[in-house]
Amino acid sequence: MSAEPQPARRPGGRTRLISKRLWAATLEILAEKGVDGLQYEDLAARAQVARATVYRRWPNRGDLFRDILARFAEAFVPLHDSGDIHDDLVAFVYAFAEASATPEGRAVLQILMRKADESDGLREVALELLERRTDDLQRRLDAAAALGQLPAVDARFVNMMLAGPVQWFLVRRTRPFTRDDADKVVGVVLAGLRHGDAV
Amino acid sequence: MSAEPQPARRPGGRTRLISKRLWAATLEILAEKGVDGLQYEDLAARAQVARATVYRRWPNRGDLFRDILARFAEAFVPLHDSGDIHDDLVAFVYAFAEASATPEGRAVLQILMRKADESDGLREVALELLERRTDDLQRRLDAAAALGQLPAVDARFVNMMLAGPVQWFLVRRTRPFTRDDADKVVGVVLAGLRHGDAV
Repeated sequence: MSAEPQPARRPGGRTRLISKRLWAATLEILAEKGVDGLQYEDLAARAQVARATVYRRWPNRGDLFRDILARFAEAFVPLHDSGDIHDDLVAFVYAFAEASATPEGRAVLQILMRKADESDGLREVALELLERRTDDLQRRLDAAAALGQLPAVDARFVNMMLAGPVQWFLVRRTRPFTRDDADKVVGVVLAGLRHGDAV
Repeated sequence: MSAEPQPARRPGGRTRLISKRLWAATLEILAEKGVDGLQYEDLAARAQVARATVYRRWPNRGDLFRDILARFAEAFVPLHDSGDIHDDLVAFVYAFAEASATPEGRAVLQILMRKADESDGLREVALELLERRTDDLQRRLDAAAALGQLPAVDARFVNMMLAGPVQWFLVRRTRPFTRDDADKVVGVVLAGLRHGDAV
């Protein structure tokens, strides 16, 4: 940033302002046009910065997409262990729904839908991110199993059963996904895991 | 088609051939580039027909997209009533997974993810299509409830619980979705509906 004019006057102030404007422009474009609409020219124009500034921040679109994924990950809440597996999963599912309904969340889904070879390994970054969440979930499910609250279950399967319906709902977006919706999804899946014999 | 050269020589032959080539080109582009890659110029070049021929067939992209949706719908099998609700739902879920894994199926998901105002009412056509499937499902679930095999349940919720996991799985596509996967999903959901109290 030493090439920026008057860098010492408000230390970090101008950088922060530019960051803020660039991020606002990114979210605006994501909401309007999706991942494929993210063009540096448009970003620079909307954020009212030079195109070189955009390139300095994100030397290539892969860097920009990685930032979007990181923001999506930040919106997740940690998976708690309150002792009540139902409540903990409702919080987990609801937080996922909230994060997925944002422009970043929709962008992640669009990235996952692209062909692997056109995404600079981004699909893999997104999948790794979800994989880490699956590890958290496995620990929580194992703790519940150790207490006899559930049979031993595979977190990847359970995550598909919980997050799949949320994604299905959000893609159709006739109304927001509520905590009550999360409660119903978790209720059916937990009862099914306890009483089904197919898993 | 009366403007085509020698229309009477092989009645329907040339039209059928052009249809076949155009459809093959459509699927090729969908698989490679997704819905947004469907440009008439590219379609004409790949199908080796004049651009005017593409326009005659699909005066606008909305018409083309409607054809894609119709092909997706054709891939669905009817929802049977064999008396065994588990088996019938496994067949229903598996057929949905098969249809959704095709280029047309991925195109439908991409259409659903677009903003309503940029899709010429196509999102609505896709949602109507799924709504009709929900009506079929409701009738099958009601028949099972009448026999005491299930409590009374809302087909829209059940469809979300069944099709959501399939879509989640397919977007991540690490391997094909199998009939055994469908069996597990249906097993958990049916047991959950029978034993849960949240629905």
